[in-house]
Amino acid sequence: MAENGAKRIRLGMVGGGTGAFIGYVHRIAARLDGDFELVAGALSSRPDVALESGKNIGLAEDRIYTSYEEMAQAEAARPDGIEAVSIVTPNHMHFGPTKAFLEAGIHVICDKPITSTLEDARKLLEIQPKNGAKFLLTHNYTGYPLIRQARELVASGALGKIRVVQVEYPQDWLAVDAGDDNKQAAWRTDPAKSGAGGAIGDIGTHAYNLARFVTGLKTEAVSADLTAFVPGRQLDDNVHIMLRFEGGARGMLWASQVAVGCENGLQLRVYGEKGGIEWRQDNPNYMWFTEFGKPKQLLTRGGSISTPPAASMNVRIPSGHPEGYLEAFGTLYSQFAAIIRGEGAAYEGLLPTMADGVEGMQFIAASVQSSHNDSRWTRLSEV
Amino acid sequence: MAENGAKRIRLGMVGGGTGAFIGYVHRIAARLDGDFELVAGALSSRPDVALESGKNIGLAEDRIYTSYEEMAQAEAARPDGIEAVSIVTPNHMHFGPTKAFLEAGIHVICDKPITSTLEDARKLLEIQPKNGAKFLLTHNYTGYPLIRQARELVASGALGKIRVVQVEYPQDWLAVDAGDDNKQAAWRTDPAKSGAGGAIGDIGTHAYNLARFVTGLKTEAVSADLTAFVPGRQLDDNVHIMLRFEGGARGMLWASQVAVGCENGLQLRVYGEKGGIEWRQDNPNYMWFTEFGKPKQLLTRGGSISTPPAASMNVRIPSGHPEGYLEAFGTLYSQFAAIIRGEGAAYEGLLPTMADGVEGMQFIAASVQSSHNDSRWTRLSEV
Amino acid sequence: MAENGAKRIRLGMVGGGTGAFIGYVHRIAARLDGDFELVAGALSSRPDVALESGKNIGLAEDRIYTSYEEMAQAEAARPDGIEAVSIVTPNHMHFGPTKAFLEAGIHVICDKPITSTLEDARKLLEIQPKNGAKFLLTHNYTGYPLIRQARELVASGALGKIRVVQVEYPQDWLAVDAGDDNKQAAWRTDPAKSGAGGAIGDIGTHAYNLARFVTGLKTEAVSADLTAFVPGRQLDDNVHIMLRFEGGARGMLWASQVAVGCENGLQLRVYGEKGGIEWRQDNPNYMWFTEFGKPKQLLTRGGSISTPPAASMNVRIPSGHPEGYLEAFGTLYSQFAAIIRGEGAAYEGLLPTMADGVEGMQFIAASVQSSHNDSRWTRLSEV
Amino acid sequence: MAENGAKRIRLGMVGGGTGAFIGYVHRIAARLDGDFELVAGALSSRPDVALESGKNIGLAEDRIYTSYEEMAQAEAARPDGIEAVSIVTPNHMHFGPTKAFLEAGIHVICDKPITSTLEDARKLLEIQPKNGAKFLLTHNYTGYPLIRQARELVASGALGKIRVVQVEYPQDWLAVDAGDDNKQAAWRTDPAKSGAGGAIGDIGTHAYNLARFVTGLKTEAVSADLTAFVPGRQLDDNVHIMLRFEGGARGMLWASQVAVGCENGLQLRVYGEKGGIEWRQDNPNYMWFTEFGKPKQLLTRGGSISTPPAASMNVRIPSGHPEGYLEAFGTLYSQFAAIIRGEGAAYEGLLPTMADGVEGMQFIAASVQSSHNDSRWTRLSEV
Repeated sequence: MAENGAKRIRLGMVGGGTGAFIGYVHRIAARLDGDFELVAGALSSRPDVALESGKNIGLAEDRIYTSYEEMAQAEAARPDGIEAVSIVTPNHMHFGPTKAFLEAGIHVICDKPITSTLEDARKLLEIQPKNGAKFLLTHNYTGYPLIRQARELVASGALGKIRVVQVEYPQDWLAVDAGDDNKQAAWRTDPAKSGAGGAIGDIGTHAYNLARFVTGLKTEAVSADLTAFVPGRQLDDNVHIMLRFEGGARGMLWASQVAVGCENGLQLRVYGEKGGIEWRQDNPNYMWFTEFGKPKQLLTRGGSISTPPAASMNVRIPSGHPEGYLEAFGTLYSQFAAIIRGEGAAYEGLLPTMADGVEGMQFIAASVQSSHNDSRWTRLSEV
Repeated sequence: MAENGAKRIRLGMVGGGTGAFIGYVHRIAARLDGDFELVAGALSSRPDVALESGKNIGLAEDRIYTSYEEMAQAEAARPDGIEAVSIVTPNHMHFGPTKAFLEAGIHVICDKPITSTLEDARKLLEIQPKNGAKFLLTHNYTGYPLIRQARELVASGALGKIRVVQVEYPQDWLAVDAGDDNKQAAWRTDPAKSGAGGAIGDIGTHAYNLARFVTGLKTEAVSADLTAFVPGRQLDDNVHIMLRFEGGARGMLWASQVAVGCENGLQLRVYGEKGGIEWRQDNPNYMWFTEFGKPKQLLTRGGSISTPPAASMNVRIPSGHPEGYLEAFGTLYSQFAAIIRGEGAAYEGLLPTMADGVEGMQFIAASVQSSHNDSRWTRLSEV
Repeated sequence: MAENGAKRIRLGMVGGGTGAFIGYVHRIAARLDGDFELVAGALSSRPDVALESGKNIGLAEDRIYTSYEEMAQAEAARPDGIEAVSIVTPNHMHFGPTKAFLEAGIHVICDKPITSTLEDARKLLEIQPKNGAKFLLTHNYTGYPLIRQARELVASGALGKIRVVQVEYPQDWLAVDAGDDNKQAAWRTDPAKSGAGGAIGDIGTHAYNLARFVTGLKTEAVSADLTAFVPGRQLDDNVHIMLRFEGGARGMLWASQVAVGCENGLQLRVYGEKGGIEWRQDNPNYMWFTEFGKPKQLLTRGGSISTPPAASMNVRIPSGHPEGYLEAFGTLYSQFAAIIRGEGAAYEGLLPTMADGVEGMQFIAASVQSSHNDSRWTRLSEV
Repeated sequence: MAENGAKRIRLGMVGGGTGAFIGYVHRIAARLDGDFELVAGALSSRPDVALESGKNIGLAEDRIYTSYEEMAQAEAARPDGIEAVSIVTPNHMHFGPTKAFLEAGIHVICDKPITSTLEDARKLLEIQPKNGAKFLLTHNYTGYPLIRQARELVASGALGKIRVVQVEYPQDWLAVDAGDDNKQAAWRTDPAKSGAGGAIGDIGTHAYNLARFVTGLKTEAVSADLTAFVPGRQLDDNVHIMLRFEGGARGMLWASQVAVGCENGLQLRVYGEKGGIEWRQDNPNYMWFTEFGKPKQLLTRGGSISTPPAASMNVRIPSGHPEGYLEAFGTLYSQFAAIIRGEGAAYEGLLPTMADGVEGMQFIAASVQSSHNDSRWTRLSEV
């Protein structure tokens, strides 16, 4: 794993003030491999919060902003201005900053889902980035080394033609009304901020993206049954979807925020004519791989059979020593940094793009529409 | 656990000749707790196989039959005739023997699914059993002690109102064409013998029954997508179903015979407003139980919190010493024996009935119909 | 798996009256595969208990005895007398019945440990069994199919020369004083009935025997540290032992009855120059097998690579359907039955013998002596 | 979790040139929480390697040194000189740099074991650090949140008086001769560089330290059997030790580098009069906690019952999202940073000290001596 202390990329952040969860995660991810230096931020639209949050993480006062537009303009004008920006606001606040920074020639790292509406997502595609500014969508689970290996295994034909894809992401933190005090819960359950999907947008898209990333299968149609179990909740908190893929494979996707006893139980299982793989995020350093008629094998991160190039997997420490969520997140950051520096040829096609983000929004929209139509099979191309 | 060596019930068997799988299992189950003595059999319609099979398991020659009709008549006429019979033939051969023996006043233990067609199942309900002859359907997974405990936990309200039910039964033994030599595979993939469902009838019904047994929820409708992946196969080998239960709970059922790496991965997960449970058949002596906001607890068969009456659970050995499939199967046999002897009040309502069998056939028929109608939600009452 | 209903062996039982644990287990094991018919018993020395217990399990009144001597004499004299007897009394009551029945020409199935003292064990070797009466010691864990497979793997050289053996058997049921009411605890913690060892005799011998059975390694010496943690307890409830095997392998054995949270956590791990295996009794249908430099493989009972002859493993049902403790126990019974019938050539060398029992007592005696001598390395041949 | 971008501590590094494992880990740990900025290094004694390695990680050329003495002197003289240094050389090269930097008033973070000999370790205690320079020994496993929680559980009395401690650290990477090309293996198996212990010094000390950290029990004596299995190896590659603690608790420690199939299987199990805990490093976000007579509970990092103050545990992300080895390592760094800044009162007594390092060396020396004396019980105070 290369360390590039001498070529650190100057980074800004939009959102992520004190108390925010995902902004903090992005900052750790940016630091982990030493590829970025956070130097500017519009961490909050409230001036006092923005100032305190910025000082707390070591920003110079003149680079603490309260508006992303102002930040984009000012930083683009500085000789030592930021080269990239992380956008870690609620969903409905992704579109504006993304457009502003790309048009200012600043690379954008944006949290998922890409926007709160499919319309916004499609408008993103029309943006003309200045100076070839690039875009990364942090579907962070694709950064797990064994997920990269799973993708390679499928692509290599080791599983044969894929038949069945089972993916799920159960949680339980919204099993009861979280109340207005829970900032994380509040915006996620508010259609104005989160978009048309609740659980489907927050975690269902992660599950969908993971299945797509590993199998490479294109989705034909979805048949969805979305439910809001907690009284008064406006958005779905449980998602049941059947999937049909091009070429005939079938799948099921379950996402839930009311599955008591589940924390972040993201799990992917893929079965083909010749083999199967099974992986869980809560113990991500292990993956089952079975060839038909042979015993199950437990592959380990960086362990005995690591067919993909080590570089693409970004294995930092020996197998048996667990890496986790932050390392997978950090891998997206460091490999995006490599691409920014022009040294990332090995990662082309591996990092989630704007097109992936738009497809994720299509998945949400098609699922919501299917659910409204009594689970009628709905093509992604219909929405 | 009572042993009743002095009051053994005289048992006959239809089907289960040499080489059969499920007949052998039934015989072990009948012996395990010492409640039955196998004394007669129509193990095969081929005289030579019937004779050899019968002698092999110790039957007297004059009680080895080649026709179940003959057996029912002859045994009913003997003073020491069989009191009960096990029917372990392929699905299409369940109806005839069940009718014959019940009408002869002989208790019937029948393997699942109850018949090969819904019509046959409904006709069973019209039978007039002589002398109060009773019927048991061997949905054997309901015999697992922790499944009994799960049912009690749900009934006690420990989980609160149920919201989500996830049940699955993946296997891989039919991932390739098993060929004509595989007797187990041959009839299961033949519509004439197995009925309208493949995987859905063989293992999907088990999964369905298990969910119903534990939750007590009535099914409102199903939305199904059945697939036959192996070229040339006439019946489904992969089953994706969304479930809607009365009262608003939602569920998913996955059954597959092409999931490479899965042996008999029956798994049930139930989530309510207050708690959740998770259980797997391949390690059936453990069950997760979580109360919202508290750590997950690992309940063990016969372990620290065993709320249900010990009798109904039929725990034979201390926790930590594994019991398995045969013990669960044996529990159905021994508790049915208790009912036959008039000592089974504790088990009333616990053992699978003819009505359960008919509902299972409705589930199959509704699912097949839904799948034919592009997964349209189909009520069980429609079929 | 052969069923031999026509040739059932007539069985008696000494000990195992109502409320006994291990007698009940032996009866299930005897019934499971249909090889035995229990027809006589001296289930208790108290006449009322003997009578009630005998009737409860269906014995004819004239074959319910209150003394094993009387039973041995009477049964040997009957034309339909028992051919074999199960001895399931506390340890100090093993020697007498074993001698009496062997000398009466009746096969003996004896629970472990073989006696309560090494002296008694050695005297057993001097017995002259009449008519070639045979002896089986129920070290039941050796009956697990994967344990048989482990033994075959080691013997085949798949692990290379063995270096390290880690075996343990933690429980927690004696973590507090069980009180006089607990019949199971009472005799096990009483030196007069249990012998010089507590945990070491009750479960340490099982662990020791399992390691010996799988590896085939002869023990050179032990260094032991035995402790009684519960106040007032006379016998050890925690056992720490280091092992040296002939040829240079090293091992550790831990047995405990005070390890809170452990039920019957018997575990065996064996590491050789080329490979390693790991197995746990609480999930006995799975075993890890690793070849150096390759991924771990999860072997399943009856699964994809089952090198040993199926007959010796006695797999009753397909992989993925769990078998357990009773089946393993039953395998010893059914394979001993085959040997009694002269059809058991395949099992020669697999079933625990009197010599194994004596070695187990040497292991106990050497460990107790080592512990008394401040853990001095003590050869089994010294005691 | 505080982020302190504004108060980053200037850090140097001794050892850790290109290709080194543990130096790279230390650098990630230093970056993770943003508390340190690496600005100087004596990464290698070979000038070319030192230069290339230093430039690679972004050091200014004038702060790339080839001698730690020169570095200590030069940096102490600079106004912007390093405030702390990480020492990540092989064991025999720990003493010199530690002394040099402490005497230069620079805080020292030193990899374990503290030195290669007990003599050297004791000499460290005589050093007079200038300006109150502090010392941290990176027994990194103590940084795992659940290990902190385990320590709190024991200290709170939740387990009652401790009786049994089972700790193990099996690996397999040295199961065969690694050859001279393997830099990691070469120095670890060389007594001149590694010290008197092989596996015991490399991983046995980790296991020992972990048991001590969690239980707080003082060790009375050890009875050890160390073995070198690989032909030609001079140092032990398998370690069997029985432990006696003050107050009567007993323990076992197993460390191995030849256990085929084990990667970094560090595991700790502690049993007291009232409860037990079990934890494994390869899945470190979970810990079993059992209260006697109740079901096992699965505690999760940051999950439902997190009794210790959140600050001391340093939980970065929600439960269910795995943290790993690097985060645990990073916690030691960030909490040491807090102590350096005078803000670390909450961590006093939690971070491994020089005294812990000396005790670790006593443990090694006593174990080696015991093993030489045929496993005689040897007090740590004897060596």
